Amino acid sequence: MPSKTPPQLDALAAFAVALCDAARPIARRYFRTPVAIEGKQDLSPVTIADRTIEQALRRMIGERHPDHGILGEEEGAERTDAPYVWVIDPIDGTRAFITGKPTFGTLVALLFEGRPVVGVVDVSMLGDRWLGVAGRPTLLGDAPARARGCRRLADAYLSTTSPQMFAEPQEGDAFRRLLGTVKSTVYGGDCFAYGLLSSGFIDVVCEAGLKPYDYCALIPVIEGAGGRIADWQGQPLHLGAKGQVVAVGDQALLELAIDVLRGEGSRARS
Amino acid sequence: MPSKTPPQLDALAAFAVALCDAARPIARRYFRTPVAIEGKQDLSPVTIADRTIEQALRRMIGERHPDHGILGEEEGAERTDAPYVWVIDPIDGTRAFITGKPTFGTLVALLFEGRPVVGVVDVSMLGDRWLGVAGRPTLLGDAPARARGCRRLADAYLSTTSPQMFAEPQEGDAFRRLLGTVKSTVYGGDCFAYGLLSSGFIDVVCEAGLKPYDYCALIPVIEGAGGRIADWQGQPLHLGAKGQVVAVGDQALLELAIDVLRGEGSRARS
Repeated sequence: MPSKTPPQLDALAAFAVALCDAARPIARRYFRTPVAIEGKQDLSPVTIADRTIEQALRRMIGERHPDHGILGEEEGAERTDAPYVWVIDPIDGTRAFITGKPTFGTLVALLFEGRPVVGVVDVSMLGDRWLGVAGRPTLLGDAPARARGCRRLADAYLSTTSPQMFAEPQEGDAFRRLLGTVKSTVYGGDCFAYGLLSSGFIDVVCEAGLKPYDYCALIPVIEGAGGRIADWQGQPLHLGAKGQVVAVGDQALLELAIDVLRGEGSRARS
Repeated sequence: MPSKTPPQLDALAAFAVALCDAARPIARRYFRTPVAIEGKQDLSPVTIADRTIEQALRRMIGERHPDHGILGEEEGAERTDAPYVWVIDPIDGTRAFITGKPTFGTLVALLFEGRPVVGVVDVSMLGDRWLGVAGRPTLLGDAPARARGCRRLADAYLSTTSPQMFAEPQEGDAFRRLLGTVKSTVYGGDCFAYGLLSSGFIDVVCEAGLKPYDYCALIPVIEGAGGRIADWQGQPLHLGAKGQVVAVGDQALLELAIDVLRGEGSRARS
């Protein structure tokens, strides 16, 4: 859809990267600071990091692009009817952050007329930053990231953050069907799993209960690496999607995974 | 048990650290090297790393301590009736390694008369190395590591690598009971979770199906940080244990967790 690519995409992508540059020192400042688990608690370090990052990024966007909209995890939506809307998750992987695992990330997406045209998955403590820009190859740092070929679920590595994500009984049933068809399943990924899929180390990520700030940034990253990301009906994700997300490195896996999630033809096809 | 502390413990601990120093560049060499998921496969990078590390460590032990026993994941047991036995897991967290997550670790333990007196949990890609020595405070790098206080399961962060670890139906039932009593559950830790427990970021780790090379190194690390580790009956782990492992940062949690795992008094106590 070249008609939907905005002008000055390079400058906008560079600004998305600058936003993540600003987030990094804040995340690092609060990571692995001690938390008393008992007694009266004030704000936890992850909550402070979440809010401080989002405030900093909102300030930068407001100064540079005062006419752009913003949707953030912490402070909600403003001007989301504007042509350009920034979608921000300051700390994706709150539980990873809390438990001292440096696998959380900062997610920044830019929507143009409702479509994500820039996405950054910045696993800041590890220095792993994936940048996706509509119509261009995804980068991990300075090098192209490329998903790997995997045409059968029986060969696939599946990742999901937690089995508790599947809050509705039918979601749990669908996930267990998919789990039964793949080679191996790994847990605990958050946004990092989608980055690793884009670099050819994971074949399928299946999750539920995600919010727009969890998935918007993933779309340009995965598509620019040759993969696909959709809802469990195979439809494109958008701001009002239900949050059931499936991503694949090899496009051939998308239909297979969706058939299994919907309970159709899993035996015949996998 | 001071009678069971061997002479020259410092030198033996330094040698355990030297073994991990030797493992690091090998793990780094093979981490995130591409794997074709389809077609005829030769050895995978993680298998090569596993074997290469274990061979290097066995060679070092054989040269320095030819009378010591060795139990390794890859190449089995030799002289395990000797007073000193080294227990090695070259890559703990094989699936993390395969999927590009730098959260795997190298585990080295030294048993003296059957009891682990030195343990190293080396999350090598992250530079997080926990060293436990019997009767001494555990170190993370150069700084003391200390588990945190948490006297109620309702306040606890629980970690487990994968729900698929609980292969026996009663194991799955027991784990789900425990999961129902805690504040929050995180997945995907491998040995890293036990290190993070020792540093006060996780309160309970509960797993099953572990082998001696998975848990021996954890024991001095956790005990030296003020925590406890045992089997699901509350008994000390030993080379012949069943592999059902529960670790707690606060000793008060051990009995509570075991009661829940055994289906006793979970409502009354948690």
